[in-house]
Amino acid sequence: MEDHVTPRRVVIVGGGFAGLFAARALRRSPVAVTLVDRRAHHLFQPLLYQCAAGILSEGQIAQPLRAVLRRHANVRCLLADATDVDVKGRAVHARRPEGGSVVVPYDDLIVAVGMRQSYFGHDEFAVHAPGMKTLADALEIRRRLYRAFEMAESAADAEERRQWLTFALVGGGPTGVELAGQIREIAGHTLDREFRTIDPLQAQVLLFEGSDHVLGTFGDRLAGKAARTLHDLGVELHLGTRVTDLDARGLTVQERDGTTTRHAARTVLWTAGVEAPPLARALAKAAGAEQDHAGRIAVKPDLTLPGHPEIRVVGDAMSLNHLPGLAEVAMQSGAYAGRAVRHTVEGRTRKPKPFRYRDLGAAAYICRGRAVVKAGPVHLSGVSGWLTWLFIHVAFLTGFRSRLGAALSWAIVFASGARRERAFTLPDSDPEPARPRVPHGSTAVLRGP
Amino acid sequence: MEDHVTPRRVVIVGGGFAGLFAARALRRSPVAVTLVDRRAHHLFQPLLYQCAAGILSEGQIAQPLRAVLRRHANVRCLLADATDVDVKGRAVHARRPEGGSVVVPYDDLIVAVGMRQSYFGHDEFAVHAPGMKTLADALEIRRRLYRAFEMAESAADAEERRQWLTFALVGGGPTGVELAGQIREIAGHTLDREFRTIDPLQAQVLLFEGSDHVLGTFGDRLAGKAARTLHDLGVELHLGTRVTDLDARGLTVQERDGTTTRHAARTVLWTAGVEAPPLARALAKAAGAEQDHAGRIAVKPDLTLPGHPEIRVVGDAMSLNHLPGLAEVAMQSGAYAGRAVRHTVEGRTRKPKPFRYRDLGAAAYICRGRAVVKAGPVHLSGVSGWLTWLFIHVAFLTGFRSRLGAALSWAIVFASGARRERAFTLPDSDPEPARPRVPHGSTAVLRGP
Repeated sequence: MEDHVTPRRVVIVGGGFAGLFAARALRRSPVAVTLVDRRAHHLFQPLLYQCAAGILSEGQIAQPLRAVLRRHANVRCLLADATDVDVKGRAVHARRPEGGSVVVPYDDLIVAVGMRQSYFGHDEFAVHAPGMKTLADALEIRRRLYRAFEMAESAADAEERRQWLTFALVGGGPTGVELAGQIREIAGHTLDREFRTIDPLQAQVLLFEGSDHVLGTFGDRLAGKAARTLHDLGVELHLGTRVTDLDARGLTVQERDGTTTRHAARTVLWTAGVEAPPLARALAKAAGAEQDHAGRIAVKPDLTLPGHPEIRVVGDAMSLNHLPGLAEVAMQSGAYAGRAVRHTVEGRTRKPKPFRYRDLGAAAYICRGRAVVKAGPVHLSGVSGWLTWLFIHVAFLTGFRSRLGAALSWAIVFASGARRERAFTLPDSDPEPARPRVPHGSTAVLRGP
Repeated sequence: MEDHVTPRRVVIVGGGFAGLFAARALRRSPVAVTLVDRRAHHLFQPLLYQCAAGILSEGQIAQPLRAVLRRHANVRCLLADATDVDVKGRAVHARRPEGGSVVVPYDDLIVAVGMRQSYFGHDEFAVHAPGMKTLADALEIRRRLYRAFEMAESAADAEERRQWLTFALVGGGPTGVELAGQIREIAGHTLDREFRTIDPLQAQVLLFEGSDHVLGTFGDRLAGKAARTLHDLGVELHLGTRVTDLDARGLTVQERDGTTTRHAARTVLWTAGVEAPPLARALAKAAGAEQDHAGRIAVKPDLTLPGHPEIRVVGDAMSLNHLPGLAEVAMQSGAYAGRAVRHTVEGRTRKPKPFRYRDLGAAAYICRGRAVVKAGPVHLSGVSGWLTWLFIHVAFLTGFRSRLGAALSWAIVFASGARRERAFTLPDSDPEPARPRVPHGSTAVLRGP
């Protein structure tokens, strides 16, 4: 008769590292898992900047969730945007991309929604300064980076050219540092000999950071080394600065002493902060849970919500012991939550051990031949850090069919500077018949060579 | 003194096969070439459907023009949308993507603008039925193909599910046939075991064609074989039909006898016709040249415009002896125009031989193990056609760093059905705070498995 009992319904919201590892931990359980995500793919976020920088393709860092989980017969994937949780009725409300809603009932809920880019109350900055959280963000950044050099080449005057060759990055964490390094490498290595008017090497990269360090989480020594490497690479560091205004032509920053400076830059990228997505707020409100300043939901040591043993929050959106928003934390907390549900199903009555994060360290790539790695007492930088980074990332991509492809792409870009994935799209502009002969706006007559 | 003479200015509009081959033919000439294109990449159009179908990445079929031409010291690339030609003043007017115009003077003009998708006067169809001419088109089709299966999986009822699993293709030329084959292969091979509610194999593919044949240009015998192969593959052919209406839920077609039929389909793709872009109209008007019904510009046997020996039209947008719009015609006519300019520069006075197209044949891929190839008296189909297709395309990609990558991607998809490039983006939808608990529109409660 056991077989005919309706299996326990586990709903996982979010298919990032946390959600995926939760689903995997439930593989052999007699449960019915529904994985709800508003994207159809799992994103290998640590390499997103490489997609933006034209080294890797979308498919090399994003795999369809249902392809990853095809052998997990107890998991169904649902492409929908979870908008609310009915805590009393135990159901997730979600909206399908092309209209229509869906209600997904649960017995256990694992919330793994991650964090999104935060503009610290200035959401109007987003249109001028894309963030770096989604595949669409990466493609937008790729478009802006390579378009900037194209626009500089055809600029009407020296001032416009200078503005297109100035790249401002807001945020000195790993993503900002990685992007800064990529832009300088694109300018100095990839685009070598491709332009006739500009010298891509004149590209200026300005990195703005609110604290006194880039890569502050790596500790003073590595942070100092990273700053020196960036400096040698030609990146201009502006530490202790806060962005007060931002538009299509540049940004205004305020120093600690209150002075403000305007920097002209036609490309501004934003990696400065994160905030919880709306679902976290909805859940916190419905379940009476607490949120930290960025909207992360406070959980008990077993990752459940106070008063709701059936709801677990994992990954970046969970607030517990100030754990950082790292892929590794997401994987471990997701797997813990999956195992905890499995133990419940198996009828184990012993109280589970609290979640303990095993710190396996962190790594940030700066440029070819330079990376910083921190793993417990081991602090690496320069070439040894870079080799470690390379080893970790080839190893981490194991589950991906594209490991070979990524290794190949890296070998090519390290050796020759050539980046395979530089193609970008531009909005179409020819529905109209031919334009009037007298053009509007600034007109440059192309000089001979 | 020879060195100080201003070099002859050659402007090429369009960086497709025709424009690229024209630039290459001028490599050793003492001319200053400006290549104007509104995209920064050269597109390997014959494989665009493979990007749409999730086999190849953008970078595998699109290379930056300036990377392709980096060793051509006499070529400068300009990212701008050519909007008009000042025939008298000998200058091309173009608009830069981020504002501002540019005027590019020429001594010789080579127009290689290609053709764009035509909806036969129904431009309002475009929003519901994307065409297949640009990289953006391919990414849009990829999004719609894979999203359709996702939506079918979560459909509220059987009728909605059926609509999402119905794919309508308008146009029975190579692109339409290739897409039809891809959709059936995705359904039957790639998505195998990934869904829990739907059976992807139930996907219906309807192919609508105005004439009595698919692949009519390949001759009756190959066209007949292609029709049988498509039928065996499960594609429903609707020959002799004309689309009279089209919206987000399907299309209405008229048969020869005047009867109309409505077909419900949530995915409609359009490959039915082409028309010249606005610049061709502007040029024809300015130079007093004739255009055929689709806007192609009539050229003399040496590819110049009557009365304008300094203007040549090449590739798909040229009208000469009813030559077809094939990559091979574009390459040969582009190279011819480049050589003709070189001969002028070199002071050759002998009248050039008229352009003669050497027909090297054509090939169309239908599905794994099936293609049709026509090369002079040689007509191949089935496995032999497919092996020939494979050989040609690996050989043709020679200039591309991605030849190895493409061959690898093909080996994987042929062997296992796995497609690496399935990731697609969706518009974001979370600027708002959490939505009201009572959802609007149809709401489905997800049933247990």
